[in-house]
Amino acid sequence: MQALLLVAHGSRRAASNREVETLASALAPELEERFPVIEVAFLELADPDIATGIRSCIDRGARSVVVVPYFLAAGTHVTEDLPALVEAARAVHPGTTFTIAGHVGAAPMMHRLILQCATERV
Amino acid sequence: MQALLLVAHGSRRAASNREVETLASALAPELEERFPVIEVAFLELADPDIATGIRSCIDRGARSVVVVPYFLAAGTHVTEDLPALVEAARAVHPGTTFTIAGHVGAAPMMHRLILQCATERV
Repeated sequence: MQALLLVAHGSRRAASNREVETLASALAPELEERFPVIEVAFLELADPDIATGIRSCIDRGARSVVVVPYFLAAGTHVTEDLPALVEAARAVHPGTTFTIAGHVGAAPMMHRLILQCATERV
Repeated sequence: MQALLLVAHGSRRAASNREVETLASALAPELEERFPVIEVAFLELADPDIATGIRSCIDRGARSVVVVPYFLAAGTHVTEDLPALVEAARAVHPGTTFTIAGHVGAAPMMHRLILQCATERV
């Protein structure tokens, strides 16, 4: 069973963290065929952390975890910190497959999404 | 003529700022029918700032500027700082119409974009 772990930076503002959790909840019904398990984790400033988010995926039955960096830019959080944390999880969970997806800012669909933002209220 | 001003937070990492500029350049051909002018501006830490980005749009012939917040969460940058800066621009450019679009994190298409991220490399 495959899980999607949406990883955001995390904020001191609880509302910003909730925004990510709400997004993940809204995603769940749409993605459940491909990803029966969807969890959220934060790199810093908020809980759950990455290790806890991965543990939740595995506890819910996932044997494959796709980590999606909910970041707009490929800063060191995306290129170094997150891969190091996933590598650590690989050592702890040898029976689980981990994949790190591209960060959302680099998705080809971002062009159309920006157009959607720009035109919906115009 | 309508302009799209893509406003990002701005980073101390030049590569992150370039990533936004590259995205805007890639957008331009796709959006040029609707938005003949596309510019980028940064809220802090990088140039051009919002006032300069708006000035560039107007210098290139725009009489209507749609500001798209390239932010994942509706923090105070999106809810307070950016509207205040656009309000200031309204006073400086009374002949120009300004609209602030929803931030990219709230776009309905974000669901599909996350799925695209999660499945393209899996």
